[in-house]
Amino acid sequence: MIIIPTRLLCRLTRGHMQRAPHSAWNIFHLQQSPVTMDASEFRRRGKEMVDYVADYMEGIEGRQVYPDVEPGYLRPLIPTTAPQEPDTFEDIINDVEKIIMPGVTHWHSPYFFAYFPTASSYPSMLADMLCGAIGCIGFSWAASPACTELETVMMDWLGKMLQLPEAFLAGNAGEGGGVIQGSASEATLVALLAARTKVTRRLQAASPGLTQAAIMEKLVAYSSDQAHSSVERAGLIGGVKLKAIPSDGKFAMRASALQEALERDKAAGLIPFFVVATLGTTSCCSFDNLLEVGPICIKEDVWLHIDAAYAGSAFICPEFRPLLNGVEFADSFNFNPHKWLLVNFDCSAMWVKKRTDLTGAFKLDPVYLKHSHQDSGLITDYRHWQLPLGRRFRSLKMWFVFRMYGIKGLQAYIRKHVQLSHEFESLVQQDPRFEICAEVTLGLVCFRLKGSNKLTKALLERINNAKKIHLVPCHLRDKFVLRFAICSRTVESAHVQLAWEHIRGLATELLKAEKE
Amino acid sequence: MIIIPTRLLCRLTRGHMQRAPHSAWNIFHLQQSPVTMDASEFRRRGKEMVDYVADYMEGIEGRQVYPDVEPGYLRPLIPTTAPQEPDTFEDIINDVEKIIMPGVTHWHSPYFFAYFPTASSYPSMLADMLCGAIGCIGFSWAASPACTELETVMMDWLGKMLQLPEAFLAGNAGEGGGVIQGSASEATLVALLAARTKVTRRLQAASPGLTQAAIMEKLVAYSSDQAHSSVERAGLIGGVKLKAIPSDGKFAMRASALQEALERDKAAGLIPFFVVATLGTTSCCSFDNLLEVGPICIKEDVWLHIDAAYAGSAFICPEFRPLLNGVEFADSFNFNPHKWLLVNFDCSAMWVKKRTDLTGAFKLDPVYLKHSHQDSGLITDYRHWQLPLGRRFRSLKMWFVFRMYGIKGLQAYIRKHVQLSHEFESLVQQDPRFEICAEVTLGLVCFRLKGSNKLTKALLERINNAKKIHLVPCHLRDKFVLRFAICSRTVESAHVQLAWEHIRGLATELLKAEKE
Repeated sequence: MIIIPTRLLCRLTRGHMQRAPHSAWNIFHLQQSPVTMDASEFRRRGKEMVDYVADYMEGIEGRQVYPDVEPGYLRPLIPTTAPQEPDTFEDIINDVEKIIMPGVTHWHSPYFFAYFPTASSYPSMLADMLCGAIGCIGFSWAASPACTELETVMMDWLGKMLQLPEAFLAGNAGEGGGVIQGSASEATLVALLAARTKVTRRLQAASPGLTQAAIMEKLVAYSSDQAHSSVERAGLIGGVKLKAIPSDGKFAMRASALQEALERDKAAGLIPFFVVATLGTTSCCSFDNLLEVGPICIKEDVWLHIDAAYAGSAFICPEFRPLLNGVEFADSFNFNPHKWLLVNFDCSAMWVKKRTDLTGAFKLDPVYLKHSHQDSGLITDYRHWQLPLGRRFRSLKMWFVFRMYGIKGLQAYIRKHVQLSHEFESLVQQDPRFEICAEVTLGLVCFRLKGSNKLTKALLERINNAKKIHLVPCHLRDKFVLRFAICSRTVESAHVQLAWEHIRGLATELLKAEKE
Repeated sequence: MIIIPTRLLCRLTRGHMQRAPHSAWNIFHLQQSPVTMDASEFRRRGKEMVDYVADYMEGIEGRQVYPDVEPGYLRPLIPTTAPQEPDTFEDIINDVEKIIMPGVTHWHSPYFFAYFPTASSYPSMLADMLCGAIGCIGFSWAASPACTELETVMMDWLGKMLQLPEAFLAGNAGEGGGVIQGSASEATLVALLAARTKVTRRLQAASPGLTQAAIMEKLVAYSSDQAHSSVERAGLIGGVKLKAIPSDGKFAMRASALQEALERDKAAGLIPFFVVATLGTTSCCSFDNLLEVGPICIKEDVWLHIDAAYAGSAFICPEFRPLLNGVEFADSFNFNPHKWLLVNFDCSAMWVKKRTDLTGAFKLDPVYLKHSHQDSGLITDYRHWQLPLGRRFRSLKMWFVFRMYGIKGLQAYIRKHVQLSHEFESLVQQDPRFEICAEVTLGLVCFRLKGSNKLTKALLERINNAKKIHLVPCHLRDKFVLRFAICSRTVESAHVQLAWEHIRGLATELLKAEKE
């Protein structure tokens, strides 16, 4: 290594004054380069921040889970422009409590039962600190070999935890493999684009005169009517039709409805090319019937993508793995460890059976991204697997979490959440005023007051006004339903019990008021 | 708030054993839920990690900037599966040095001159720690009001720093505003999709019978032949033609070439709808002529998107702000504070004049994302501005960095980098064996050995083999060129001088060997 003699350092100011490339330069040339925060100051402030973070996590139960602020609350609290001169760290950390925290919805409070969980764990936070320090942008193997290679191996580790078919693993010479995407939405879109390219090439090979536009006009993608809105959006972005297949009584996509749609569309001259099956829908955590849908996709030569954004984490437990049966029919599979596997956002795990399907949809290689190993066939350039070019060293989070929990620890964590949702389910079932609205399989309970939707809406309003717990509703067919999702890493039976007592109490008040 | 009595806590195990929803359940029911790392352990390990990070940053100059490893190095070094039982933190942190660091390209080494800078600063790392702890997913205002509102205000702060036209700011009642995207690639794609939707709606309003496919077949987007590969990819994803406009002798897109392409395409029945102008191209940091291109876009009613991914940060300095003149003609503008403004990846700043253009391209509102303030017109739901649904609290990084550096500190940082590139430029100019290949405006110097491309390629090979500095090449027309980008936060004149001495020495060796 080159070692710089100390006397050579800090010659900046002298050099600075020798040149004036712009006339305005002279106004500024006496300024020193700033040393706002050096390593020793970071050591001090970083440790204070570690304590702040630990205090926040330890004390989160004492904070109101949903904030009191009204839209527009923040702007009047801070200056209209950035400061010219530096503020101190003390000023900033004080403002965190004064300005930021009052407007935070505390996703990691044990009273947060809204949406789906977003993962948070200390090992993941430690890994993120390291990721920030290394700060590499891993778009190609050469841009940081460790970043690419750890990701490939971590995706194999995770694939093995899920007992994914061998074809999805990279191994030493596989055609498949995994990649960390930013979100399930991106994974769906990437899969749809890869499928679009694949079918276009196939059709153009058969009929060389066919234009891309002529093909795209006829392409149809399918998902259940319970699929996440991001699937519809992927169709919109990709410029293809997306049709919603009516789900059955258990909110699952079944063979008959899918086959019917395919036949109708083919008869109309359209070209089915892509099916998204959802395992664990957002509204009620229902499961499309993979064992029925999969063979149809094989028979029709249609790309099958599985979106298990929330539910996927559960498949590391042998008792839940049967829910993934049929994955062998899929071309791509995705779930979010950043939801339920203790890896902080963002970390969306996507596998494909043929990596060339993804890279073929995107591959563009300018010379500034070329490197000597590129054509060896040995390396992976993840920029060809995703929408953005840049990417962080996110596999460090997986590595830290998998190692510091161990598979058994992760399984126990999943089981605890499932246990808690069943506990809530049985509490609801014990109260004849309420009904359960969908089968409880993992960590989500859909329930409502028997009777009109208006009643359950009024109950939700009381819950939201009280702000002791936080949950969100959904529609299941024509029913307005409350979703109780087990979310926080620290939620325990006692929190679930208290949440239920709270909901019951509000229901009693509501029903009394309704009668009056 | 609900306070849980201690005696109620930790009833999990008992509850756990009461239920057996799956037959396989019994095998596992004796497992305790894991407490792999609690807050007090995190306080200890977090502080160790702060020291590790500070040590890494302080000692980075002593590490070889580009690694020695060969493809596939990592897999044999770690187990083939995740451990069943937890590993210790000591094991993991030891493995970081043994397994990860040997494969890292050190982007923050002062001997890293490759690609473009990726930002790194201590204030940003502190903010990221806080972001990880809060761990909210800010897809809507209600999902965490502070996350959305701080972002809007920070984007206004930054817009003001750049002296963006008022129309791009959110202010209190503006139609425009800013959003943090993950990358410039995503910003370009989002802009293209918004433009595609807008032109489609306009044409369909005029001719209701027109199908989307019929329109898309005719849509044409344009960028300079120097534009980033992500622009071509956005066209590919969006399913529209993208045409490269030949740049002029200074690698800039000019009026005449663009106008010519537009006329030719319109005459052929095509529909121009989108132009990307680049400020600071990736190859040589050239600038498209906005003052020429802008008025054409206005006249032709074509969406103008400006991609200033790298260069944009410099516009906070008044002496560089003229490079942005013409932004008033644009519909959308984007640059990456995560490149050159000391905000760690990811933080790509995008502004639009009409936010409804973005939200109109995407808006889909399932009931589980609805909240009471949504139709008030007062709130922003950023999920409608971007591709993924999920998003982190990234504006905290901007807030910390802007406040702890102050505008003057940020300006001084930019000026230091520009000064260093000019210093390198003049060193190159003093050696008659070399030539400068493009105008040096900001922090990038393109240079080569006079003579054949083979010669410069051979020089690059020697540089890469020596691994004392790291840089990457590009093509400028038919010339093979080396890019020397000022990247590290800690790079000083002495490093630049030593890098140049090193390159000169290798060139002397090479030229001597060539003669023999």
